[in-house]
Amino acid sequence: MLKPSRLSRGLRFASQTPPRDTRYARINDADLKNFEKILGKSYVKTEEIDSFNKDWTKWYSGNGACVLLPSTSEEISAILRHCHERRIAVVPQAGNTGLVGGGIPVHDEVILSVRRMNREFDFDPDTGVLSCDVGHVLEELEGKVGEFGYMMPFDLGAKGSCLIGGNLSTCAGGIRLLRYGSLHSHLLGLRVVLPDAKGSLVEFGSELRKDNTSLHAHHLFLGSEGQLGVITGVKMTCVTKPISVQSAMLGVNTFDECRKILRIAKTKLGEILSSFELMDRETIGVLEDNLQFSNVIKTNPRFNILVETSGTNIDHDREKVDNFLEYCLSERLANDGVQAKSAEEHRLMWRLRESATIALTLDGIVFKNDFSLPLHSFYQLTEEVRARVGGAAKRVVCYGHMGDGNSHLNVTSTKENADRVYKMLYPFVYEWVVKHGGSISAEHGIGQLKRPYVNLGKSTEERNLIRSLKTLFDPREILNPYKFL
Amino acid sequence: MLKPSRLSRGLRFASQTPPRDTRYARINDADLKNFEKILGKSYVKTEEIDSFNKDWTKWYSGNGACVLLPSTSEEISAILRHCHERRIAVVPQAGNTGLVGGGIPVHDEVILSVRRMNREFDFDPDTGVLSCDVGHVLEELEGKVGEFGYMMPFDLGAKGSCLIGGNLSTCAGGIRLLRYGSLHSHLLGLRVVLPDAKGSLVEFGSELRKDNTSLHAHHLFLGSEGQLGVITGVKMTCVTKPISVQSAMLGVNTFDECRKILRIAKTKLGEILSSFELMDRETIGVLEDNLQFSNVIKTNPRFNILVETSGTNIDHDREKVDNFLEYCLSERLANDGVQAKSAEEHRLMWRLRESATIALTLDGIVFKNDFSLPLHSFYQLTEEVRARVGGAAKRVVCYGHMGDGNSHLNVTSTKENADRVYKMLYPFVYEWVVKHGGSISAEHGIGQLKRPYVNLGKSTEERNLIRSLKTLFDPREILNPYKFL
Repeated sequence: MLKPSRLSRGLRFASQTPPRDTRYARINDADLKNFEKILGKSYVKTEEIDSFNKDWTKWYSGNGACVLLPSTSEEISAILRHCHERRIAVVPQAGNTGLVGGGIPVHDEVILSVRRMNREFDFDPDTGVLSCDVGHVLEELEGKVGEFGYMMPFDLGAKGSCLIGGNLSTCAGGIRLLRYGSLHSHLLGLRVVLPDAKGSLVEFGSELRKDNTSLHAHHLFLGSEGQLGVITGVKMTCVTKPISVQSAMLGVNTFDECRKILRIAKTKLGEILSSFELMDRETIGVLEDNLQFSNVIKTNPRFNILVETSGTNIDHDREKVDNFLEYCLSERLANDGVQAKSAEEHRLMWRLRESATIALTLDGIVFKNDFSLPLHSFYQLTEEVRARVGGAAKRVVCYGHMGDGNSHLNVTSTKENADRVYKMLYPFVYEWVVKHGGSISAEHGIGQLKRPYVNLGKSTEERNLIRSLKTLFDPREILNPYKFL
Repeated sequence: MLKPSRLSRGLRFASQTPPRDTRYARINDADLKNFEKILGKSYVKTEEIDSFNKDWTKWYSGNGACVLLPSTSEEISAILRHCHERRIAVVPQAGNTGLVGGGIPVHDEVILSVRRMNREFDFDPDTGVLSCDVGHVLEELEGKVGEFGYMMPFDLGAKGSCLIGGNLSTCAGGIRLLRYGSLHSHLLGLRVVLPDAKGSLVEFGSELRKDNTSLHAHHLFLGSEGQLGVITGVKMTCVTKPISVQSAMLGVNTFDECRKILRIAKTKLGEILSSFELMDRETIGVLEDNLQFSNVIKTNPRFNILVETSGTNIDHDREKVDNFLEYCLSERLANDGVQAKSAEEHRLMWRLRESATIALTLDGIVFKNDFSLPLHSFYQLTEEVRARVGGAAKRVVCYGHMGDGNSHLNVTSTKENADRVYKMLYPFVYEWVVKHGGSISAEHGIGQLKRPYVNLGKSTEERNLIRSLKTLFDPREILNPYKFL
């Protein structure tokens, strides 16, 4: 297996990494002593901290001098109070499953890991409201609320290791967004520690679905990537766990037909539609070549659509999916349509979609992207990139949450060509996306990767206001520096 | 028809209205000249402005010296620039359908009406994203997106006259929240004019469902009641219009059974459940006595539950509602259950629920409330109030969006007893609600009505932060003063 090399990392960041900000103090023995006083010796780590300093893709690595592992909000408050006073830079870190280096130090920031923040768990089965600390693994929460007949309202590939705190900080999207909406739909309240002189511990919102007694400031922390405060607890709604989950795949000739099928899915499947995923032929190719998977649709179509429904009545749901497939086939919008008739068939369909990332890492150097695009230009970008990078790349692959307008355009290359491909891609794709009314970061965030491009398309007024908000919450700018704010 | 009198208004506000803040300039001729220069003479009104200075319930009235009627964001920017420079206080006003006086001047604030802001309307039927100015009436928007097979994701009694801008500023809830979530679920972007030296016009967010390229600052304006900036445009998602809408009513003996029925509705109706409304026996009484309506359930039950489903398949939906009713009856959770079999029956059920407000105004002086409560104490408050106010009140009535934990407790009295009832109720109910983990404003907002109680249960840390945010957005505090911030 090829590993993304230092070379490619260098390619992306050599000219982009901002220099260390000399306003920040360097950690000394007295700091460590104080952290040990707050947390106890075992939870201030200065050795064997490589796994905290590097992200799992090995693209990003920092030189954080120590890792702090608090288990209460009060400990985090004491830490931030100290760091504020000494002006020590801090990077909050959750499950370290991000793709843009948002939770990895750029220089020598102290790493504040929330993975031990997993004491509180409370669930109200009447209302479906979950109150918990942010160090819980998403999949564990899924299991726990599942016992009450509920489900977490979002799901993503990293669920086995990502923490709910990281999901909130990045406003994670994932494969259920089409049905259940973004995390803003489910957020009711947050407990946050601010990096101010007092390490203020603030509770925003409540456990109530409707509460208009204050500014809804908790929503400001979603997607703020740990740059305004450290989220330590959340109150959010969960959704009723479906009794019936149906999947189907369709083989389609043109992207225009894919768009038509999406509108039909919204009408015919309506309230039970929970995913509408796209994989182009090249995505299937990388799965076949690197993982020896074979497509469920056997005719090698230009586009594969994976539709999922979640509902409360198996018979009703199957009938709806049948009607939907029949309509698409009879109107010749799709050439092939397969409804999963067993758990095994369902698994096979989703294995294709979920293994795309792994299959790509086996393909060579991967240039990953995470764009939102209006549907009329959704696939156009892939075609333009394919024409542009020509033979220099190994593959140009597009898959993603088409139902949400979220495209994951991935380009792979050999080590030798990586430099060339990189230069052909960036900033071309970012500029293209902004020009076409899209977003250069749909769900992965900005982190280190997209910091140089974060102002593309943003007005001076917005930037000024965002800066003022940062200053208000983090007056000494100690929280997650060198990132987008 | 009895009208709420000045007496009762006096009761509520005599000791509460804050004095005029002398930092604010009084409008002079030069100001009016400048406004006329910006808007044209016809859109600066100083006469016949009573309907802007009073709210529709006639509870609140101010002495705004002029009404400004801009039709573009640029005009609003010029107005706020001028008002910032001169430190003139401004109250933004939308449809003037609020219940807490949030859009009514307290003293002589300039009234900035957005009702002419209704030029832009754009809708993308692929994605269901609406982009429009804030002066559109909710019902008109409902009609316009309806032509594309979509529906606004919220609905409320005032839909015929409320404006989308007011809905956003108050984070309006309403009867679809259970199914579609709060406005945070649907907000994608806002255009806002800030009351700063430049009258900055800022665009937050985008038309995209997923966009993690900036702070999600637009969410801060939802529920801010026009105190941070003037919202002039919105981008939001609409939902697929249901093909099948089913209603059913149940007669229930105890509130505990109502709770059980809610959980069963979530399981058996699942994805099609769109409303779960409660009316107690006293609510039906006020409808019978003042409007001569008769209940659909003929056995005069202690509680009436009105359930609505919205889906894409009539047969499936009716079968689900049948199963649900059958289950509730066979398990003896409900004594009666009626499914609406015609549009007329559906209308009769909803007329009961929607006419409660009118029926109450015919009953005498009305003390309205809008609480969120955890379900375990949802009805307990009504019982305690009933015991407390005893014979002094005419009626103590509870109805509301039980599925969202939102209770509308209403107490009526004669003019003569109003003073006594008022004193028995307040601040007792507010303190009770906060003590029991509820919210004193679920969806109506704070406005003038609840300003004295807004800090109940809020921490110093939160209050400080909220204050700082206000100062950041509105440094001269000109926007909607004397309200909650």
